[in-house]
Amino acid sequence: MSGVAIAINAAISAAAYFMTVRMIPRFREMFINANLFGKDLCKKDKPQVPESFGVLIGCVFLVSLFLFIPIPFTFDEAAATDAITGGKPDTFPHDKFVELIAALLSICCMIFLGFADDVLDLRWRHKLLLPTIATLPLLMVYYVNYNSTTVIMPNFARDLFGTSLNIGALYYVFMGMLAVFCTNAINILAGINGLEVGQSLIIAASILLFNAIELLLGHQVDSHIFSIYFMLPFLATTLALWKFNKYPSQVFVGDTYCYFAGMTFAVVGILGHFSKTLLLFFLPQILNFLYSTPQLFHFVPCPRHRLPQYDSKTDLLHISTTEFRLDDLNAPGRLMVTVLRNLRLISWHTKADGVVRTNNFTLINFVLVVFGPVHERVVTQMLMGFQVLCTLIALTIRYPLANYFYAKT
Amino acid sequence: MSGVAIAINAAISAAAYFMTVRMIPRFREMFINANLFGKDLCKKDKPQVPESFGVLIGCVFLVSLFLFIPIPFTFDEAAATDAITGGKPDTFPHDKFVELIAALLSICCMIFLGFADDVLDLRWRHKLLLPTIATLPLLMVYYVNYNSTTVIMPNFARDLFGTSLNIGALYYVFMGMLAVFCTNAINILAGINGLEVGQSLIIAASILLFNAIELLLGHQVDSHIFSIYFMLPFLATTLALWKFNKYPSQVFVGDTYCYFAGMTFAVVGILGHFSKTLLLFFLPQILNFLYSTPQLFHFVPCPRHRLPQYDSKTDLLHISTTEFRLDDLNAPGRLMVTVLRNLRLISWHTKADGVVRTNNFTLINFVLVVFGPVHERVVTQMLMGFQVLCTLIALTIRYPLANYFYAKT
Repeated sequence: MSGVAIAINAAISAAAYFMTVRMIPRFREMFINANLFGKDLCKKDKPQVPESFGVLIGCVFLVSLFLFIPIPFTFDEAAATDAITGGKPDTFPHDKFVELIAALLSICCMIFLGFADDVLDLRWRHKLLLPTIATLPLLMVYYVNYNSTTVIMPNFARDLFGTSLNIGALYYVFMGMLAVFCTNAINILAGINGLEVGQSLIIAASILLFNAIELLLGHQVDSHIFSIYFMLPFLATTLALWKFNKYPSQVFVGDTYCYFAGMTFAVVGILGHFSKTLLLFFLPQILNFLYSTPQLFHFVPCPRHRLPQYDSKTDLLHISTTEFRLDDLNAPGRLMVTVLRNLRLISWHTKADGVVRTNNFTLINFVLVVFGPVHERVVTQMLMGFQVLCTLIALTIRYPLANYFYAKT
Repeated sequence: MSGVAIAINAAISAAAYFMTVRMIPRFREMFINANLFGKDLCKKDKPQVPESFGVLIGCVFLVSLFLFIPIPFTFDEAAATDAITGGKPDTFPHDKFVELIAALLSICCMIFLGFADDVLDLRWRHKLLLPTIATLPLLMVYYVNYNSTTVIMPNFARDLFGTSLNIGALYYVFMGMLAVFCTNAINILAGINGLEVGQSLIIAASILLFNAIELLLGHQVDSHIFSIYFMLPFLATTLALWKFNKYPSQVFVGDTYCYFAGMTFAVVGILGHFSKTLLLFFLPQILNFLYSTPQLFHFVPCPRHRLPQYDSKTDLLHISTTEFRLDDLNAPGRLMVTVLRNLRLISWHTKADGVVRTNNFTLINFVLVVFGPVHERVVTQMLMGFQVLCTLIALTIRYPLANYFYAKT
């Protein structure tokens, strides 16, 4: 009975929540002593805030799931010890067992590498390498367990490719890139109090909602139960972190947390076989990434930090800006800023000497372009509201529209 | 054919060696910038040496084994895809597969927690908690996979307990404690250039030798091949580390390395079913632990550091000392020091005011008590020589004597 396993998972998650809430304040001093802290630049007194608390909640998450490992198999009839031989029955879900362990290995490895990144301050190119390393075990287990690399084609492509297409190695490239995207997408939509944790909370809740709907519909039951096993303790520990990370932040979360969250989402998306739906829940992160592209790939000058500017007199956030001469940009750069300007997606100010000043191309700055100077707490709330809206859009796309693209078989 | 798998593992290990040798010097600066460094107190100029390099070689080790995951099953006839159904055959070694992943999970978790310990400088009680957390996945997988907790009794105990005895939960306690012992035992026989890495090198080589002998004898083939898969890349990366960690150390290894090494040994001992033989290879560590007991449990005053004292004039190491009044010790403490004094295992100097001065109770100091002031490089060589001697003793106990205690069945 998976119901009992989910109930035990929920109980462990509740315990994890209370434990995390108790632990966070006790460890603040230790992080500061270890030189893991940052200044909160969007506050009047620029307080020192301990950094990288993702490592602590990652540990609690791991211990919770380590303890949970035997539970699904204890309550699974297919896994019950053979009464006659005393050994494992033929029906024992070996594939599920190894997937559970491999998923934990990938997440554990990602938390570790994220923390190493926080401490050692690795270079930009490592940010792409680390999630790739951490996904390796997952991909290898997928290779040994299934090695099924066939994707179902949407209706409009079936004339060209047939109902399904074996994309071979590309499938592994896609899964690896999904992990790279999920980890980094959360990391670049960040910088104001509570935003990384807030968006992860809503994505986790959206996944749980989606799992529940699918279970009610009776679709792919095993995959969605598997996802719930990971999402409940993730939601619980993240909720505890949110208590201390929301405005005004008492702790920062570090790359560790963004990597941990992104990898956990990627793992349930890959092993739960709903990676396309998962990407729908990442709509704000995708938009932020696309909007950031001109700066990330240096078509437009990109300052080291693109955080909004804090005005201590009004306690409000203003856009941060970048400056360039239109003639100095290369052709694609000129095209990009012209399109963005005409669509009124960026601010545009030409100075007397011909230098153009625009906002930095992040979703946070975009909110400030549209709504003018706004309080930090409110910017986070607006972006979280947008994340919720995107979940509703995602579910609308997933349910009514998916039936249009993917005919029932 | 496991031979091919071992050959590929050896090739990956060789690549890992060369990669580690290239990487270590490049990362030195980054570790120092990240505040991860210590002063080498046993040198004239007390140079700053980057610390915690265990994290780097642990990463290379993990990546090597991640890439190796599918190999054993590619060359295993029992795992070959069923030609008729295209699925996994009934003979697929699911138990070996999940053990491989669980072993990696435990080792990865231990490297992560070791690094967290190095960075955050956790308290003493955590040193026992961390390996326990990291062994959890291994124990859980053992529980689901076998849950066989029966031990074979030696001859002399068979009248009392029978040929074998089911010790139930105690079995798990033993396995958990083995991990705690292995990780901490390496950590406390440490402090002079190259010692942690040198002893681990010899233990790893001893395990490989033992695996080879057992394979030649045709005993428990699968278990020893499994052990070789882990020991080859461990030996390779450790050898690369040794190049930079031997006297005079260019890098320090940190708790991260000791935990990593100890856990890797514990994992192969547990899953390879040779935990008792493994402990025989830990003879110097066991002696060091026993010798340290009076100070570790505070029967005798224990200074924060028990490293030998460096004499910059002669460039030699002298014993470091602790002082106490015999009357101030409690009864067990008095008994312990009296026994140790009578066996001439500690130095003993009574000052005019009745205060006793003895060496600190570590194997390193013991070498200095016996041989007088010795150069740091030579102390490490002596202790490594002793470790080799202990391997010979261990194999003598294991082979001729074990037949006496465990009758052939």
